[in-house]
Amino acid sequence: MDRIVIAHGGGGELTDLLIREMIRPRFTLSDLDDSAVLPAVNGRLALTTDSYVVSPLTFPGGDIGRLAVCGTVNDLAVCGAEPRWLTFSLVLEEGLSLAVLERMLDSARDAAAEAGVTIVAGDTKVVPRGQADGMYVNTSGVGVFRREPLPGASAIRAGDVVLLSGFVADHGLAVMLSRTDQPRLRSELKSDVAPLSGLIEDLLAAAPEVLFLRDPTRGGVAGVTADLAVECGLGLVLSEEAIPVRPETQWAADLLGLDPLTVANEGKVLAVVHEADAERALAAMRDHPLGNRAAQIGRFTDRDPGLCVLKTKAGGSRMVAKPYGEELPRIC
Amino acid sequence: MDRIVIAHGGGGELTDLLIREMIRPRFTLSDLDDSAVLPAVNGRLALTTDSYVVSPLTFPGGDIGRLAVCGTVNDLAVCGAEPRWLTFSLVLEEGLSLAVLERMLDSARDAAAEAGVTIVAGDTKVVPRGQADGMYVNTSGVGVFRREPLPGASAIRAGDVVLLSGFVADHGLAVMLSRTDQPRLRSELKSDVAPLSGLIEDLLAAAPEVLFLRDPTRGGVAGVTADLAVECGLGLVLSEEAIPVRPETQWAADLLGLDPLTVANEGKVLAVVHEADAERALAAMRDHPLGNRAAQIGRFTDRDPGLCVLKTKAGGSRMVAKPYGEELPRIC
Repeated sequence: MDRIVIAHGGGGELTDLLIREMIRPRFTLSDLDDSAVLPAVNGRLALTTDSYVVSPLTFPGGDIGRLAVCGTVNDLAVCGAEPRWLTFSLVLEEGLSLAVLERMLDSARDAAAEAGVTIVAGDTKVVPRGQADGMYVNTSGVGVFRREPLPGASAIRAGDVVLLSGFVADHGLAVMLSRTDQPRLRSELKSDVAPLSGLIEDLLAAAPEVLFLRDPTRGGVAGVTADLAVECGLGLVLSEEAIPVRPETQWAADLLGLDPLTVANEGKVLAVVHEADAERALAAMRDHPLGNRAAQIGRFTDRDPGLCVLKTKAGGSRMVAKPYGEELPRIC
Repeated sequence: MDRIVIAHGGGGELTDLLIREMIRPRFTLSDLDDSAVLPAVNGRLALTTDSYVVSPLTFPGGDIGRLAVCGTVNDLAVCGAEPRWLTFSLVLEEGLSLAVLERMLDSARDAAAEAGVTIVAGDTKVVPRGQADGMYVNTSGVGVFRREPLPGASAIRAGDVVLLSGFVADHGLAVMLSRTDQPRLRSELKSDVAPLSGLIEDLLAAAPEVLFLRDPTRGGVAGVTADLAVECGLGLVLSEEAIPVRPETQWAADLLGLDPLTVANEGKVLAVVHEADAERALAAMRDHPLGNRAAQIGRFTDRDPGLCVLKTKAGGSRMVAKPYGEELPRIC
């Protein structure tokens, strides 16, 4: 048997076989079938969930297994919690190749090791052909606060600055380009999908006064910054010059008619700090392999409350708006 | 707009609108977009996850919203934890009616209230038409242990007995019958989907020596009892006479050629206790509305280690095996 069949999802012998031979050897699952019992914790907890429906399942720089672990790890890390335990739940389409499933599980295992988290519980369902697109994955995660939760958008004041840990838009554009069957549109562009827990740990150790962190995924940097201006009731001025964009990413964005600021990232963090802390925070990010192109990209002002404006390289300025929907679906 | 469109899943304005108008009013979501911060806990935690792909979305006695909350609550409760916080993650198919989505969210909200849990985090993805079947839901849950985790199968000895909280197979057969378009095959049969946290709390208060609990979902009572015999290395003799089956459920099972013991339940708990505790445990279950038909259905023996045998009403006996796959897919 080299493909998923309906009976793999029936909760019977074949489900057991799938779990015993493919899933359990990779993850640290509880012996209990129903729930994992976690070690005692000391402190408040963070809890998050994300479903992943990315198409295709594999793209330059990653796949749905790596994405599902990193995305949930990053959601925990940006609220200031230490990511610790993940669940991993599969909806598999009848006919999915077991070899593909194994590669995705390998990626999830490796990403969990890289992020320092343990996958402790899971679930497997199978739907008939045509009722999913290969596989969908849900990961949920629990993190432990070893410090107070971050102050958040309401603590931001005029003069505070926005830092970004590196190049924008690599994930979304790598996935989009991977869907084309025209070889001339392929490029060297790779998704940035990575667990940010280490980078954020280093950042918070060096600059514990960080006010706000967010990973700019769906909606991109524009989504986060437009929201931030509204939430804190201040103006936010971004500098196009300062925002790191790879040439190949800009090329791909131009080709597809997309603004890199609105495209999803999966390995970047946006931080808001007091200006006095900016150099220290940037230095900490740049010392980490995932942050070596960190830059200060904007500043909050008392003018234009609630608006985010981009100062363009050409010397003009334009509004930065949260995208209405999404230019292309199923990026994550 | 009365249907889900791709842009609802883009992480932009339209996603915000969906969350603001339909999801947030029903659930207690964190103000943080990424993670919920939970209150401090004192004790060990249980963590579980399940994805729900039931077809149809609505069936007699319940729907995917109620099922997704109850199933995860029950997974926490059967390991002896108090269910507390849930996540709720949606994969929606383009074209899904917003009215249907609202009904499912209402059901989830009501089931959470019934179970005494809080839905604190969520996620929404949209896939194009034909790449899901209406909607899939993942719920993950965190519970708190206020007592030691249950001893489990390894603590079971010959002479210990198996209790079941009520009628078997109602969920699976109600869902199966709801798929038929032949009115004469419809019946009064309803799914038993319900949160078991209250019943289990009462049971453990009255009989804290309970060795093992499990909710017999996919694979049914047969799946749990066949596994139990193997895990504890004892024989297990079930009495067909003692197993509560509604006449209409037996009728539906006969019609479809199914053994009720292999059909999924979503509101029943199977308990193993020392014989001396059986009456007290049964009385506690029967005092709860969800357990008023609780019965002792079997006993462990030193004979036939690893085998589960059913003594039939006719006076014969047959092996109880874990189903290989599933007679019909997408029951939960």
